[in-house]
Amino acid sequence: MISRVLSADLPEHVGERVTIAGWLHRRRDLKSVTFLIIRDRAGLAQVVLRAGDETAGEETVLHVEGLVVASPQAPGGVELTEPVVIQLSGPAQPPPFDLYRPAVTAALPTILDHAPATLRHPQLRAGFEVAAASAAGFRTALDRAGFTEIFTPKIVGTATEGGANVFSIDYFGRPAYLAQSPQFYKQAMVGVFERVYEVGPAFRAEPHDTARHLAQYTSLDAEFGFITDHFDVMAVCRDAVAGMADSVRERASSAMQFLAAKLPEVPAQIPYLHFSEAMALIGAATGEDITEEPDLAPAHERWLCQWAQREHGSELVFVTGYPLHSKPFYTYPDPRRPRYSYGFDLLFRGTEIVTGGQRLHRHEDYLQALAARGMDPVPFAGFLQVFSHGMPPHGGFAIGLERWTARLTGAANVRQVTLFPRDLHRLSP
Amino acid sequence: MISRVLSADLPEHVGERVTIAGWLHRRRDLKSVTFLIIRDRAGLAQVVLRAGDETAGEETVLHVEGLVVASPQAPGGVELTEPVVIQLSGPAQPPPFDLYRPAVTAALPTILDHAPATLRHPQLRAGFEVAAASAAGFRTALDRAGFTEIFTPKIVGTATEGGANVFSIDYFGRPAYLAQSPQFYKQAMVGVFERVYEVGPAFRAEPHDTARHLAQYTSLDAEFGFITDHFDVMAVCRDAVAGMADSVRERASSAMQFLAAKLPEVPAQIPYLHFSEAMALIGAATGEDITEEPDLAPAHERWLCQWAQREHGSELVFVTGYPLHSKPFYTYPDPRRPRYSYGFDLLFRGTEIVTGGQRLHRHEDYLQALAARGMDPVPFAGFLQVFSHGMPPHGGFAIGLERWTARLTGAANVRQVTLFPRDLHRLSP
Repeated sequence: MISRVLSADLPEHVGERVTIAGWLHRRRDLKSVTFLIIRDRAGLAQVVLRAGDETAGEETVLHVEGLVVASPQAPGGVELTEPVVIQLSGPAQPPPFDLYRPAVTAALPTILDHAPATLRHPQLRAGFEVAAASAAGFRTALDRAGFTEIFTPKIVGTATEGGANVFSIDYFGRPAYLAQSPQFYKQAMVGVFERVYEVGPAFRAEPHDTARHLAQYTSLDAEFGFITDHFDVMAVCRDAVAGMADSVRERASSAMQFLAAKLPEVPAQIPYLHFSEAMALIGAATGEDITEEPDLAPAHERWLCQWAQREHGSELVFVTGYPLHSKPFYTYPDPRRPRYSYGFDLLFRGTEIVTGGQRLHRHEDYLQALAARGMDPVPFAGFLQVFSHGMPPHGGFAIGLERWTARLTGAANVRQVTLFPRDLHRLSP
Repeated sequence: MISRVLSADLPEHVGERVTIAGWLHRRRDLKSVTFLIIRDRAGLAQVVLRAGDETAGEETVLHVEGLVVASPQAPGGVELTEPVVIQLSGPAQPPPFDLYRPAVTAALPTILDHAPATLRHPQLRAGFEVAAASAAGFRTALDRAGFTEIFTPKIVGTATEGGANVFSIDYFGRPAYLAQSPQFYKQAMVGVFERVYEVGPAFRAEPHDTARHLAQYTSLDAEFGFITDHFDVMAVCRDAVAGMADSVRERASSAMQFLAAKLPEVPAQIPYLHFSEAMALIGAATGEDITEEPDLAPAHERWLCQWAQREHGSELVFVTGYPLHSKPFYTYPDPRRPRYSYGFDLLFRGTEIVTGGQRLHRHEDYLQALAARGMDPVPFAGFLQVFSHGMPPHGGFAIGLERWTARLTGAANVRQVTLFPRDLHRLSP
């Protein structure tokens, strides 16, 4: 390994000659002196050159040996003097905008087209640190609750959530699809491990060109058995979200500072209200007649978040009991109000970030639910066998990692916190 | 949540009436008494019924309230008497073979066709516990070494490893492919985070119907910068594998016992030998003339593992310096012997489980490497921009999770430790 000191550790080496390595983040030519700011994974370090010494352009990778001296104005309070600079890469092309400027002024398409360079900007990078910490927190929370991690197929013979918005693939000459979710597999694995989770890609051929729809996103999925109803699922979902927030606090606090982003307080009990109650409240407040609407419109989600903030001081709110026909066929109906379901959404800062619920667990209920929707049970035969071998009452949920991260960091578009996003128009880089 | 005591915790409740819940693993009718063995995620529990009491078939989900009494012959030394049994699911269809028998006698196709039922067998389930623990160990080892987790696109515009064995997909009417690896993306992210890893699916349209080829597998990928050469990559790879073994020891020891499987000792330095040296040794030992072979045959991999065991007492051995033309175009050539590369494989118990190496990092080297192979640089433009913005010397590796798990658990076929495997013939369940 190239023997080097990370920028953040330089203060421990004052008076020593050390080697640092990283990218030339910024070069400032003054009259008698040139400052090089070197960026490595731990932060920034300042190097002082005599004017006239040759240097490369920004983003060139350098190896700098020098004497560490205290310098109150420099980043970290130290700088490298009497440097010997070695160039590790060819001279770099300038990035599409100056990465050293605190604000990112480029438009989103420019950022995305040149992602390998632009994501080096500390503010753009920070979103992905938050995403990584969030995924780690999800796993830690569920590991603690006795869940087992699974890895399920992403190429499937039957479109998981019905036929719409599914990518087709040529599978050795046969038709197949990209999995829209690990739904069937995580349910099947409840029969094996009782409690399972998966962190993996989910694919939707979304024809919508909106700020929150993507063709691929990272789904944090959980499913578990022996529940009483969907409130048990919401309790585990709350713990998963709290675990994600805790992990961001522990592992990505400087990234959050960079983004001037604030973590939510996750209440021990996240407030909830029934879909019909939500519609009545919104109707009363806005004068709209929405009692027959099957789902919440984005404006309604924002209204409910404001309501939860006002009434309960919470940035998170569950909406329970979505109308049964607006939810997938595997959703458990409310036995007392069969028009409604035991499905729920979790809203956070104006947007749905989690969807979940109790599922059907009896074989005959699946046959009935498919028939009621006029769906052919044959393509689901492989899935339905799960329920002929004994399944407990169970449920689960899925958190969209990028949507959560966007809400958490204040990104206006989910693409800002999606690595190399895929959508209707975008297939590269 | 259904209030219940897990089977493993019953000994703490002797003398109390408690509720357990799980699957009817086995039912044994004796003359005056019937034993029910209930399986939950923590193990097995015995329930004693009076003869003549009604019970359901095996795999039915039950809820049993009863008095915990000490019983030295029962699993865990306790059993439930005076039970009240409630059936939580409809009566289950019998699984394709008895899940309570210690040995799995069914053939692999039967096991896979009925996976939702058959994976409940404790021995089949155990392999997936080992896989989950291994993935967790990989992440822990790399987290500790300052790596950042990433989630990259699985739908790509350019086949990552060249055109062969790639699945085509209809992407909103345009052609696209399933990612064969996160190679380009993890390299690009070295420019952002220096050190990155990903745990995710990789797709190969493998026309081979062998015991070790799959259309989808779980790839544990790592990539990092500021290396001297591939030996730095091998050192991190060693730590990742050691972390996986440690995690299996901590989190899946009973699963390993179930499988009568043994963990390898991972030496502080895994022995290594150069490809040319390996070929010479094999040639000398077997009399074959293989000095011109571009790659190791499976028999050669087995021979080298026996050699490493004999000479170094190690179940793991690195082979370094594979011929350049047998490795992908991004592989770094050995500057002293340009016919050979800085690519390596890690062999474990007779099979390659890791492939890795140092990569090219200069833009002009990529153009040259593509030209030397007669490959068109145009489809790689998005990838190549990474190297025009300053990249350090870097490298990485990929571990096939299912192959590792198969070697570790002694599974003869990698499909046994792959959840719902996908291959030439198999697309369901």
